[in-house]
Amino acid sequence: MAVRFGVLGAGRIGQVHAEAVARVRGAELVAVADPVQAAAEAVEARHGCKVRTIDEIAASPDIDAVAICTPTDTHADLIEQFVKAGKAVFCEKPIDLDIARVEACLATVAQTGGTLMIGFQRRFDPDFRALKAEIDRGAIGAVEMVALTSRDPGPPPVSYIKRSGGIFRDMAIHDFDVARWLVGEEFETVMAAGSVLVSPEIGEAGDFDSVNVILRTASGKQCTITCSRRAAYGYDQRIEVLGSEGAISAANTHRAKIEVATGAGYTRPPLLDFFMERYMAAYTAEIATFVDCLRDGMPVPTTGQDGLMALVLAEAALRSAETGRAIPVAEVTGEAGGV
Amino acid sequence: MAVRFGVLGAGRIGQVHAEAVARVRGAELVAVADPVQAAAEAVEARHGCKVRTIDEIAASPDIDAVAICTPTDTHADLIEQFVKAGKAVFCEKPIDLDIARVEACLATVAQTGGTLMIGFQRRFDPDFRALKAEIDRGAIGAVEMVALTSRDPGPPPVSYIKRSGGIFRDMAIHDFDVARWLVGEEFETVMAAGSVLVSPEIGEAGDFDSVNVILRTASGKQCTITCSRRAAYGYDQRIEVLGSEGAISAANTHRAKIEVATGAGYTRPPLLDFFMERYMAAYTAEIATFVDCLRDGMPVPTTGQDGLMALVLAEAALRSAETGRAIPVAEVTGEAGGV
Amino acid sequence: MAVRFGVLGAGRIGQVHAEAVARVRGAELVAVADPVQAAAEAVEARHGCKVRTIDEIAASPDIDAVAICTPTDTHADLIEQFVKAGKAVFCEKPIDLDIARVEACLATVAQTGGTLMIGFQRRFDPDFRALKAEIDRGAIGAVEMVALTSRDPGPPPVSYIKRSGGIFRDMAIHDFDVARWLVGEEFETVMAAGSVLVSPEIGEAGDFDSVNVILRTASGKQCTITCSRRAAYGYDQRIEVLGSEGAISAANTHRAKIEVATGAGYTRPPLLDFFMERYMAAYTAEIATFVDCLRDGMPVPTTGQDGLMALVLAEAALRSAETGRAIPVAEVTGEAGGV
Amino acid sequence: MAVRFGVLGAGRIGQVHAEAVARVRGAELVAVADPVQAAAEAVEARHGCKVRTIDEIAASPDIDAVAICTPTDTHADLIEQFVKAGKAVFCEKPIDLDIARVEACLATVAQTGGTLMIGFQRRFDPDFRALKAEIDRGAIGAVEMVALTSRDPGPPPVSYIKRSGGIFRDMAIHDFDVARWLVGEEFETVMAAGSVLVSPEIGEAGDFDSVNVILRTASGKQCTITCSRRAAYGYDQRIEVLGSEGAISAANTHRAKIEVATGAGYTRPPLLDFFMERYMAAYTAEIATFVDCLRDGMPVPTTGQDGLMALVLAEAALRSAETGRAIPVAEVTGEAGGV
Repeated sequence: MAVRFGVLGAGRIGQVHAEAVARVRGAELVAVADPVQAAAEAVEARHGCKVRTIDEIAASPDIDAVAICTPTDTHADLIEQFVKAGKAVFCEKPIDLDIARVEACLATVAQTGGTLMIGFQRRFDPDFRALKAEIDRGAIGAVEMVALTSRDPGPPPVSYIKRSGGIFRDMAIHDFDVARWLVGEEFETVMAAGSVLVSPEIGEAGDFDSVNVILRTASGKQCTITCSRRAAYGYDQRIEVLGSEGAISAANTHRAKIEVATGAGYTRPPLLDFFMERYMAAYTAEIATFVDCLRDGMPVPTTGQDGLMALVLAEAALRSAETGRAIPVAEVTGEAGGV
Repeated sequence: MAVRFGVLGAGRIGQVHAEAVARVRGAELVAVADPVQAAAEAVEARHGCKVRTIDEIAASPDIDAVAICTPTDTHADLIEQFVKAGKAVFCEKPIDLDIARVEACLATVAQTGGTLMIGFQRRFDPDFRALKAEIDRGAIGAVEMVALTSRDPGPPPVSYIKRSGGIFRDMAIHDFDVARWLVGEEFETVMAAGSVLVSPEIGEAGDFDSVNVILRTASGKQCTITCSRRAAYGYDQRIEVLGSEGAISAANTHRAKIEVATGAGYTRPPLLDFFMERYMAAYTAEIATFVDCLRDGMPVPTTGQDGLMALVLAEAALRSAETGRAIPVAEVTGEAGGV
Repeated sequence: MAVRFGVLGAGRIGQVHAEAVARVRGAELVAVADPVQAAAEAVEARHGCKVRTIDEIAASPDIDAVAICTPTDTHADLIEQFVKAGKAVFCEKPIDLDIARVEACLATVAQTGGTLMIGFQRRFDPDFRALKAEIDRGAIGAVEMVALTSRDPGPPPVSYIKRSGGIFRDMAIHDFDVARWLVGEEFETVMAAGSVLVSPEIGEAGDFDSVNVILRTASGKQCTITCSRRAAYGYDQRIEVLGSEGAISAANTHRAKIEVATGAGYTRPPLLDFFMERYMAAYTAEIATFVDCLRDGMPVPTTGQDGLMALVLAEAALRSAETGRAIPVAEVTGEAGGV
Repeated sequence: MAVRFGVLGAGRIGQVHAEAVARVRGAELVAVADPVQAAAEAVEARHGCKVRTIDEIAASPDIDAVAICTPTDTHADLIEQFVKAGKAVFCEKPIDLDIARVEACLATVAQTGGTLMIGFQRRFDPDFRALKAEIDRGAIGAVEMVALTSRDPGPPPVSYIKRSGGIFRDMAIHDFDVARWLVGEEFETVMAAGSVLVSPEIGEAGDFDSVNVILRTASGKQCTITCSRRAAYGYDQRIEVLGSEGAISAANTHRAKIEVATGAGYTRPPLLDFFMERYMAAYTAEIATFVDCLRDGMPVPTTGQDGLMALVLAEAALRSAETGRAIPVAEVTGEAGGV
């Protein structure tokens, strides 16, 4: 029997998840909620589901699971409400910008014994999965150094940045998760440098738009992350991993696999430049995995703990960029009371 | 209002088109027919459509269009039956192996004023479309020489080859269509060479498994086609076009966009090796185009005449391979009574 | 002790070979001859060799070998003169445009027991050699289909074409040699189509500027050759080989291994567009091989017979393009009196 | 008139420079010195130059310039000896491992008014030069972020590491120079992390074998450097630069430009894996540039100051890796007395 979904939030990412639920065999999109009636109705019209309020969805016996796609500052409350209501919860990252609040929320989830999966869709991207599978089968020996490149086509509105927690928490957080996933060990220290090179407004809002990070585990494995809010050539998302017996890389996705050769050179099209287009297959695979885990009673692959640790690394990176110190991860988790 | 479809034939290609119809916004899969009950029911179960007989579908007032996915030798009859029944017809290539029969069928379609679109899905492949769009916008100047590479991962059963009309008619026919599409002029002469290199059984069945073709228009534009029934590395489908001001190529699709570097070299995965996986996006775009044309009252892009001309070129190529002569296309069409 | 060279002809290709001799360890450039005094003196100035007449070089006891880089219509006479004079001879292709004259020349060489190596430098290109080595070690199984792409950046002067024997004899002749080298069997039939798409003047001179060829061996192996006198993006020289267990390709050489990504796409530089730059390493390796063979008393890898067979294939291709028939190679060799 | 060279040191890098001098038009290799007689004689035999002692070369009127290729701890003394002797000096990096010693040496050079060029050959690599030229012509707008990848095929002997000054000073020093060259501003702070992942012996010798560095200028431009002593797939040397209007990259050099496709995938050969083979063209261009500068009375492009600053960055990186602090460059230069 299909897992029956309510999607909370009908904005951009809510539409993505509604589409993903609609595509996944074994999932059924039953309801959608959004304070903006027109947004909710657009999803209803497209997918034939019902518009309900969040509380109605929580109380609906025909709902097994929800996908939380609302603003970040509502995530923790909604997770708690829905696990208490006995629904399986899929929630977009981050759980909250405040580490202590995240920990409290995870404690509540643990008490209820409910299921919480965090939306780190990159782990489900077909190319990144293929890369991880090669590593897992030993193709490059032991992982030593990971290099992640992550550049947006252009900066978001400053209004977004003011609420987002900044480049480490809203953008690099995906890379922190991928770093942990690929390295397979927790990081011990974080170094980072931040600059304002793209948009002075971002600087005025107290954020960086161009950052580099070095993560290091106790055993010495390292990961670098380079992020920029601007890449004229599209949405640049690459992974390179060096191992003891080789290296592996995952390439970008161009708009088409063609090349034009003229006297000016050989030209391929720019990259896909919208994250929803770039990662649509990943979002779908992510929901499919969530559904499979619920059906088979298996643990989800991206847990609340994963959400917490990515946030901790983001916090440490921010402190390092601000202070010029290598930040021990334990310094951040210690304050928070023991992650 | 959606275009309501019946799919005739629930074999491999029928399943592809049922899936394509299901995916296309503006299309609705209403019915499926297949003499093998289990096959029809599998489509019904998957897509929630109804199993009906072919005659029932022809008579159904809730059917606007059909996709003919039955064996080749039934195509012409079904096209005639369904255009007479007032249904729009999408039919898999070829219309028939006999040119005179094709011409008679097209005459019937013309008399009814019905719509017939032939399934040359490569024209709808996103990469090939992007290549064509670049040519059309003048990126390489005037088209001069086209080179098509078309290799299957492995040979079909000899039983298939015995019914298919052989490598020129069942495999290269797609390339003949692409050649006409890209060159934009009709070809005047055809030269071809055929060999049996892959499978002696294919040779015993009177067919080739490895062929090269040169097509030439009256103005001197040329197109080469190379086909093989075997490519150890997957389903190899490439286009190169030389123009007066440059060249353009469309690359293959690998199983993942990763590369592993070791002491043995840099290795990317093999190609997708199944035509349905390789061209699923093309099949979907093809049906979407058919639906758009019906909705907007526009002519379809791949007509019965296109189906006929591809078959004529296949016939000419076969004669050339058998006789060692450059075959004038007019020799084939002339016999058939004037295409 | 070094092999002491005289270079006959100080034009463009003579300068290339003088440079190659100068670079090769074990070779010494002793003398150069050219009716244009200034050309000979330029080589003398650059390499510190002596200007002599051709007859002086033939009579020089301090000359072991010559590189014949004079106009085509002098090649056969000079080969005969120098093998009779006891010099080892390296001669640029072709030996002569007339097959009977080539055969007579080769008979003379055979009578003297002298050494003659023909300049098919592509066999010595590092990338093409690497490709051949992979085939020889069995990387793709048995060779089945070869595809050669050969495009010049732009057409030569029509005055050159009038003397050169035309596109099949002056340009495709390299591809005919490469085809024989890679396929490893003699070809039995030749089909070709020719067009005038680049330059009407070339057509007025009775030549084609755009041709495609299909070669077929008795066992069914095939090779296609596509040539054009124009490629806006540089000197396009590629090889693809399909075998029973895989395929192999050799890529072009770009002006630099860089790529610029902007909103307009990802652009690599055009190809090297001059044959001397593209093949300088090959010319040097070719002379080095000639020197090694002389030193070690080994047979040369590109013989007079290779020069003859490439010319025979060119003749057959021309006849096929003119008549629209597949030309048996035996038809050309038979006329010539048994190659 | 040619610049007449003496090469000091006939070890591996001395042989490279002797070869480079021999290849460069306008340079003449006159003498070679090495305490190991056999090494010096091998160079003499190969290039026809004379074996002399270092002091003889310093006193030779037929020597205009020297290339210092001796062990690092002799560089500063030899530079001083030869500029005082009125010879132009080309010296392999580094000038010395001690910053104060470097500064004293450069002061001596300044007093004599002599010419000193430091061997940072990567600036002369054809691909890297092409990349720099594109940046300089504005192809990617303003440079923002540079990423350098630098991996050796395998670790050097530990005995070498004990004398070399460690990975930052003997290996990353090239990257520090490239970073300054590409960014076009001096760096203000340096962060680095070091690990021992390749060879425990290296760790026991007090060095790292795997490091990441972040460099930051006052204006916020950043450069990352990743180095490893081991790359199973060859000598990995890449540059990526992100600018305000695009990005540019320089690719690696494979052993051949071929690709083999089989059921196991598409495989290109590994990289060139020896620095002398990878950079031979760069070494030659470097000497050619030195010669051109001497001939034309132009300043050399890689100065003693460049050598000093690369060493300062290496020193700062080491301190950062050891302390976990972002090291201000001024902290290092300040100690040294004002670079």
